[in-house]
Amino acid sequence: MSNTAVLEKLSSNRAFGGELAKYKFKSAALGGLDTNFNLFLPGKASGGNVPVLVYLAGLTCTEDNGAQKGSFLGPAAKEGIAILFPDTSPRGAGIPGEDDSWDFGTGAGFYINATKPEWSKHYNMRTHVLFELPQVLEAAGLPLDFKRQSIFGHSMGGHGALSLYLSSSKQYRSASAFAPISNPVNAPWGKKAFDGYLQGGSDEAREQYDSTELISKYKDTVHILVDYGTEDNFYKNGQLLPENFLKAARLAGFDEMQVRVREQEGYDHSYYFISTFGEDHIHFHANFLKA
Amino acid sequence: MSNTAVLEKLSSNRAFGGELAKYKFKSAALGGLDTNFNLFLPGKASGGNVPVLVYLAGLTCTEDNGAQKGSFLGPAAKEGIAILFPDTSPRGAGIPGEDDSWDFGTGAGFYINATKPEWSKHYNMRTHVLFELPQVLEAAGLPLDFKRQSIFGHSMGGHGALSLYLSSSKQYRSASAFAPISNPVNAPWGKKAFDGYLQGGSDEAREQYDSTELISKYKDTVHILVDYGTEDNFYKNGQLLPENFLKAARLAGFDEMQVRVREQEGYDHSYYFISTFGEDHIHFHANFLKA
Repeated sequence: MSNTAVLEKLSSNRAFGGELAKYKFKSAALGGLDTNFNLFLPGKASGGNVPVLVYLAGLTCTEDNGAQKGSFLGPAAKEGIAILFPDTSPRGAGIPGEDDSWDFGTGAGFYINATKPEWSKHYNMRTHVLFELPQVLEAAGLPLDFKRQSIFGHSMGGHGALSLYLSSSKQYRSASAFAPISNPVNAPWGKKAFDGYLQGGSDEAREQYDSTELISKYKDTVHILVDYGTEDNFYKNGQLLPENFLKAARLAGFDEMQVRVREQEGYDHSYYFISTFGEDHIHFHANFLKA
Repeated sequence: MSNTAVLEKLSSNRAFGGELAKYKFKSAALGGLDTNFNLFLPGKASGGNVPVLVYLAGLTCTEDNGAQKGSFLGPAAKEGIAILFPDTSPRGAGIPGEDDSWDFGTGAGFYINATKPEWSKHYNMRTHVLFELPQVLEAAGLPLDFKRQSIFGHSMGGHGALSLYLSSSKQYRSASAFAPISNPVNAPWGKKAFDGYLQGGSDEAREQYDSTELISKYKDTVHILVDYGTEDNFYKNGQLLPENFLKAARLAGFDEMQVRVREQEGYDHSYYFISTFGEDHIHFHANFLKA
């Protein structure tokens, strides 16, 4: 993978004393396709490198949803933290079936690396988020300190945040999630994605990607915050299973100080829910990013 | 006009300890067409009627843009203020030409009452916002105190907020605007709208709707806050003309305490700009709504 990709700035909006910019580049991890991301730089970045919080969005979303609807930028500006918003999948790979459903293919990369031959050239969102974006952004000279990095996300992106946090070598200082798909190998969305992208299906995913499996074997300190709403229909339908994640965490010896899972009365799966707790999540990560 | 319209609740999302609900009703002011609005009720509304802040959105928008992207709900929840988000025009009137351009007809009601025969049955957003919505919401028994009402808006909705504030009989305690079309009779957007909707065109609009004209003749105390960005292309192209509004206000004797117009360095016309100053505007209105 080359780290010399040329970043093209598509737009720039001043926001909260900083800048929300949209960039495009040819992604090696995504098989040479163009991909977009948004980057919020707080005003503080003009005085030196700032820590980076990565936001992974959910099914059907793009790099815009969190930037526009999350209410993250104001709190991040105050804390002096950058937020990186990747897209949720490659786009335009031209693979048969790619655009047939809203929960698989385009808009549904699941932050894994595909191993089925037809998907493996393009569908490598794990490598894209974990390695490629930091390399490309550092090479471009953006004022970001990737040694201070945390990650959060929503739904499929909550799965991504927890999964990348627990399966990478301490690349992130903390992870949080809104309504994450917490145990995807036991949920319809996860099974469909893993069966579609991975040669070994859910069995292959279990070891590598499933947050509930990963936390049960994790052997170090963690800093994890999860919120989900009691009126979230996807929670009610068994797509999220945060209770499995919580149970596995407690069984593995992680207490409330290390893994906090909060049930939020009456909230649903929407960005109204996310924005309500967005500031709280930014403050959570600031504790570790600014330590 | 009947005030017994039946409100149908289309959706409800818990947000910031309160509720963001979308309603539909058959609007007499809009010629019997169905119209939607969003209403944010803070948690405090469970203990009694709360003041109401009306948000008028800009061209091409709906009742959703401000609710989703304005970052208004959190500050409003803290202040105990409801926010009412009307739509920006009637929809589906079936008038020839209604959907031919993005800045006229559907999505572009300009918060006036049309006087040209082909438009006058449906395009009465002024009556809809000023009279109909308060009547319908009060009749429905929602916990709102319309004696404590203020108004704000963006672009076309900024024009609407200033115009309704200055041309109604103290219905609103304060008005604010992000990048308002401040002198529409001298701007392309305004001229097109007035020529299209009004028999007397811009001449008819001058007396009734143009904020710069209205402030120049206003004879009482006002509470007005306006923000616009120096990198707003519509400002640069002469669509907004906040400098005309400011000049007219000062000539009429309104000082900085009554009419504050702030130039925000580097900001543009987007919701990134709006959300940056949203909290500030909510606090501005809270001063008067809670007095």
